[in-house]
Amino acid sequence: MGPGPISAYPSVLRSMSAPLVGQYDPFMTHAMTETQDLYRQVWGTANEATVLIDGTSRAGIEAALVSLIRPGDRVLVPVFGRFGHLLAEIAERALAEVHTIETAWGQVFPASAIEEAIVRVQPTLLALVQGDTSTTMNQPLDEIGAICAKHGVLFYTDATASLGGNAFEADAWGLDAATAGLQKCLGGPSGSAPLTLSDRAVEVVRSRSKVEAGIREEDDASASDFVRSNYFDLGMILDYWGPRRLNHHTEATSMLYAARECARVLLGEGRDAVIERHRVAGAAMLAGVRALGMDVFGDVAHKMNNVVAVMIPEGVPGDIARQAMLEDFGIEIGTSFGPLHGRVWRIGTMGYNARKDAVLTTLAALEAILRRFGAPVPAGAGVEAAADVFAGRG
Amino acid sequence: MGPGPISAYPSVLRSMSAPLVGQYDPFMTHAMTETQDLYRQVWGTANEATVLIDGTSRAGIEAALVSLIRPGDRVLVPVFGRFGHLLAEIAERALAEVHTIETAWGQVFPASAIEEAIVRVQPTLLALVQGDTSTTMNQPLDEIGAICAKHGVLFYTDATASLGGNAFEADAWGLDAATAGLQKCLGGPSGSAPLTLSDRAVEVVRSRSKVEAGIREEDDASASDFVRSNYFDLGMILDYWGPRRLNHHTEATSMLYAARECARVLLGEGRDAVIERHRVAGAAMLAGVRALGMDVFGDVAHKMNNVVAVMIPEGVPGDIARQAMLEDFGIEIGTSFGPLHGRVWRIGTMGYNARKDAVLTTLAALEAILRRFGAPVPAGAGVEAAADVFAGRG
Repeated sequence: MGPGPISAYPSVLRSMSAPLVGQYDPFMTHAMTETQDLYRQVWGTANEATVLIDGTSRAGIEAALVSLIRPGDRVLVPVFGRFGHLLAEIAERALAEVHTIETAWGQVFPASAIEEAIVRVQPTLLALVQGDTSTTMNQPLDEIGAICAKHGVLFYTDATASLGGNAFEADAWGLDAATAGLQKCLGGPSGSAPLTLSDRAVEVVRSRSKVEAGIREEDDASASDFVRSNYFDLGMILDYWGPRRLNHHTEATSMLYAARECARVLLGEGRDAVIERHRVAGAAMLAGVRALGMDVFGDVAHKMNNVVAVMIPEGVPGDIARQAMLEDFGIEIGTSFGPLHGRVWRIGTMGYNARKDAVLTTLAALEAILRRFGAPVPAGAGVEAAADVFAGRG
Repeated sequence: MGPGPISAYPSVLRSMSAPLVGQYDPFMTHAMTETQDLYRQVWGTANEATVLIDGTSRAGIEAALVSLIRPGDRVLVPVFGRFGHLLAEIAERALAEVHTIETAWGQVFPASAIEEAIVRVQPTLLALVQGDTSTTMNQPLDEIGAICAKHGVLFYTDATASLGGNAFEADAWGLDAATAGLQKCLGGPSGSAPLTLSDRAVEVVRSRSKVEAGIREEDDASASDFVRSNYFDLGMILDYWGPRRLNHHTEATSMLYAARECARVLLGEGRDAVIERHRVAGAAMLAGVRALGMDVFGDVAHKMNNVVAVMIPEGVPGDIARQAMLEDFGIEIGTSFGPLHGRVWRIGTMGYNARKDAVLTTLAALEAILRRFGAPVPAGAGVEAAADVFAGRG
């Protein structure tokens, strides 16, 4: 019940035991094409360029940024938690001129603040986290795409922590690029990163095809403009996933099966139904921890559905109590980073864990642990408050 | 029975269905440490810096090269097949000054030719493929480490296609860096890349730690010297796998289980025993295809144990026959690249497929298909010749 990685859906675990087939076996290429179609529905997009990156969610971020950023490009990164810093760091490694704006941890940006910074910085790319697990905040994106389009800025978002558990509409919100991972609301293992690119983003990627050394002129633009990575060159990755099937990496078959099954579970239950399940589980957990007398960190109106940060009560030893949760109850809850380190626990309700029994069991265990460490807790109040939410009485 | 990816060991497939745990759960960190120890034995090394890269074998290559090559460094790549070209291409993207030497496809380099080129080019790094599936050749490495050490050159090898099915001794051969994948002789799925680094290589990586923008001086060496990738910065990856456990990516748990089980299978059977099994299976396949009247491509004395390239007989339509093997017998054999395209099939005997029944069944099917397309084949000769090898009569 941490902020991710989390327990996977049982059918996702089973899917990875399926036999492997060759890279160009029709069964394999069909599985790839099918997975692309499933993720178009997950992302809410008609983007042809919808694929998986073979690596963790961080690999997806780097593939998007290194393929879209030319050395020297100005990139704007609004930072509202740890993962904004990560986007800035990855953009720096891609030799961007990185500009950041920051807001206090626990807050999100109003669209006007982002537009103001865009006007001032005139970036080629806006890189914005949707859900930052370090603060639990969910940055509203629905007005940002139009602002970016107005100013001719590419709009990338990192939806690793949020996709599948909170609303996401790649096309309606005007995203040019978005990436995620399986290990949060999608209920799978880390190791595969869904990615989608708009046609405008594909144009940028395509314009940076690398011309091989032997046939390149010294002052050819492509001599300086190529993507500084082979593994993350989205042009080559799209050619492998596309009808040309040009050999690039060897697709990670078992992780593809996992990613496909994550999407099947989500779409089988219904995208809106899964988000609603996350909303209810998150609301129940929130009501439960508050009923146990705990304060919640940050602007709760903008909290992600799938994670809550609770202030560790005065006098309770955070790490020892967390360890007791794991050792005595087999339940993991999360520690925290940066300015929140040692001040909050992060409790997730995502993917397979966005379930009534998981929420109620966690609250029962948490109550026992808080009591053990001397915090005053009203007996049964957490479980009861959460059960009320699940019953529609919350 | 292609040149990889191949069928995985059943226990490897099962291992990926194991439940996930949190990133810092003691069970997880223990599994990581255990996997490091297993791969030290697989590589034949005492290198502390022995880890997995979360991505395909190509991700392992890029992690090694981008972390070891400073922009402008001279890198020497001896090319004897497609994957030499890949090393050169990845080194170019890392902004190396790349020098190649080439030999005809189907040949390997004598150590003297590599030394001569080292003396001429004076590279900081030699990047050399061990086994190149495109030509089936196995480049001898045992004398190269001493040559590199003599000239102060770092020695990297790509052992993707060879590790586990052919001799490999990271320490005895003086390797500074080596990478592989699971989807060849290790008998697992693509998606995790074992990597090992000598202390000398670790020093290079450590000297390139990125200093954060806010505290960096304009003319600080680290301002220009940092690794041009966050995901592949081996310094950060070593800090995550090491005792400090500094958060970097979220380790791909299911792929870690797979990688661990691949090593367990190999070490359980015995490293030398597994290589011998590959040797026998490869010799049996070689004897079998020759007994069917087929010519074999390349310098057979330097062929990898685990793959053979057979000349497609005159008049047999290569791709249609290959497709018939797959559709009628469920057996995949490989096509080929570059100068061999359309001229040879590549037949693998690696990992779980380095088995008598797999070899004999493939030869029986191949005989049927060759006959169907009008090639003159002596009835039963392929199966019989291979069976003789397995019986020690070959």
